[in-house]
Amino acid sequence: MPELRKDPVMDRWVIISTERGRRPIDFMDITEKRKDDFSPFAAGSESMTPPEIYAIRPQNTAPNTPGWSLRVVPNKYPALMVEGDLNRRGEGIFDMMNGLGAHEVIVETPDPNLNLVDLDNAAIQDVFRVFKERINDLKRDIRLKYAIVFKNKGFTAGASLTHSHSQLIATPIIPKTVTEEIIGAEEYYQLKERCIFCDIIRQEIKDDIRLIYEEELFVAIEPFAPRFPFETWILPKKHFSHYETIDGEHILHLALTIKTVLQKINSALQNPAYNFLIHTAPLQEKPSNFYHWHLEFMPRITKVAGFEWGTGFYINPTSPEDAARYLKEITV
Amino acid sequence: MPELRKDPVMDRWVIISTERGRRPIDFMDITEKRKDDFSPFAAGSESMTPPEIYAIRPQNTAPNTPGWSLRVVPNKYPALMVEGDLNRRGEGIFDMMNGLGAHEVIVETPDPNLNLVDLDNAAIQDVFRVFKERINDLKRDIRLKYAIVFKNKGFTAGASLTHSHSQLIATPIIPKTVTEEIIGAEEYYQLKERCIFCDIIRQEIKDDIRLIYEEELFVAIEPFAPRFPFETWILPKKHFSHYETIDGEHILHLALTIKTVLQKINSALQNPAYNFLIHTAPLQEKPSNFYHWHLEFMPRITKVAGFEWGTGFYINPTSPEDAARYLKEITV
Repeated sequence: MPELRKDPVMDRWVIISTERGRRPIDFMDITEKRKDDFSPFAAGSESMTPPEIYAIRPQNTAPNTPGWSLRVVPNKYPALMVEGDLNRRGEGIFDMMNGLGAHEVIVETPDPNLNLVDLDNAAIQDVFRVFKERINDLKRDIRLKYAIVFKNKGFTAGASLTHSHSQLIATPIIPKTVTEEIIGAEEYYQLKERCIFCDIIRQEIKDDIRLIYEEELFVAIEPFAPRFPFETWILPKKHFSHYETIDGEHILHLALTIKTVLQKINSALQNPAYNFLIHTAPLQEKPSNFYHWHLEFMPRITKVAGFEWGTGFYINPTSPEDAARYLKEITV
Repeated sequence: MPELRKDPVMDRWVIISTERGRRPIDFMDITEKRKDDFSPFAAGSESMTPPEIYAIRPQNTAPNTPGWSLRVVPNKYPALMVEGDLNRRGEGIFDMMNGLGAHEVIVETPDPNLNLVDLDNAAIQDVFRVFKERINDLKRDIRLKYAIVFKNKGFTAGASLTHSHSQLIATPIIPKTVTEEIIGAEEYYQLKERCIFCDIIRQEIKDDIRLIYEEELFVAIEPFAPRFPFETWILPKKHFSHYETIDGEHILHLALTIKTVLQKINSALQNPAYNFLIHTAPLQEKPSNFYHWHLEFMPRITKVAGFEWGTGFYINPTSPEDAARYLKEITV
């Protein structure tokens, strides 16, 4: 069973997940593994994963057989598990609890050679619709407080498999960074009675120096204080706090926007490794006037070094205005 | 001039340092650069760096000529600069100020083929003594609020040059993570009237399940809630808040301890890339009962992925007790 442990000084939880690597030797052959061409996520390899939780497949096909276009399976090496109870406990001055939660993998395509950006718009919509459906399913378990949807593309972004996939982790605590973001947004709302993200969207559209793409329902911007070169945020223009309340029209436009952003980034930076993740309100909380869901996209083209780890203070060699100028010019 | 910008939602400052790379093309050839064997830090190449700030060299040698054993120079591509004033200003809802500060490189040896661990104990002591001396010099500038000393070893740890060096960045603000650590320690002190780090040291020595090395003045432990496999903290047993007040005896023992830890890690993990950084109290603050300086050491053997970036919530596949067992057994 994985374990959640809290640093006694910082309000920071870590997951100790020994289902994965463990001994020093397990860290040595990472470079070898990535050369392996076999994909356990490909059509025909369904038995290589735990049984599917969800799939988009023709009605005449059986679960865990080929025919599907998208498939959700539990992570084979889960960081958190649904069984058991939280069992909060101390060990001297230290606090810990069981690693209760969920860890799912969304296999975005049966074809190991396609990336998310290569999929047609309907298939990209399916990915974002499945995020919504899985969150809505998981939030019925009231022990789960937060769901984070993220994608690691490429080895340097933390992906261990090249086959296009994203992940969902549901946690029994609200993560530190999320809490800080919510507190920051709430403080602004108390001061101004406006959503800070709505204000950011308004200012970025008006200034038009960090805006890289605007369409009917979404904007894509380089944020004012980006941690990484070409960090890009995609925000819905309409205020809503919980991603899982997204409607079909927004999914359609989100898919178009993410495809456009990926094409621009791929063109500017030659198909970089990247992470994206959806920032959304905590599962068990009511719709909020001050929090505004959005997607944060980070190409992984620089190394994060000791300075950043120690301080939470990032050095970014590219201004967002420069990055926006490059990305805006690229037509896709 | 570099710029400091604050994210309007998170209390997070970033440095926009366009002295470094900028255009998309500048990110492409990183892999090529690391193959370059030439070292601008080697003896005889003194003209390749900005003029030295400090050096350990025989009295009969001139600055910026060979003969030195350790040399401190300004970073050629500084993240922050000492000239000018802070000039705090807003841009709509956004806050920014000039990137005032200092960014120095400590070249630990004239020999490009040696690593820190290869140096003799006297040379390692010199490195840690120079950290102290540079901090004491910089803290006289009262605009500087914090000094962070760190080392990136290896390309995956963010080092752009292989020649053994460490860095010092002094900032006009107290970084977010440092503030959080101080607040956490202060809250504990208010509750218990004891330093939390002193309590951690006591518990780790008593429990002896995460202790990897103990000597007269220092301990090295795997922390209870480590973010990374084999993350290791080195703490002085005696309470003091500011690294720059360290005395000669502590420097001697710190050098011995860090060499031992590096040898153990190098043996267990086959000379991994790593970062270390010194966590110390803010420059302009008085000695504190609740904060306790220490060094955090992180081998870079796993990739930090989207989940971690988005949540500040780390998944660690190795328990600190397992890591401690491996490291303790290694005799050096």
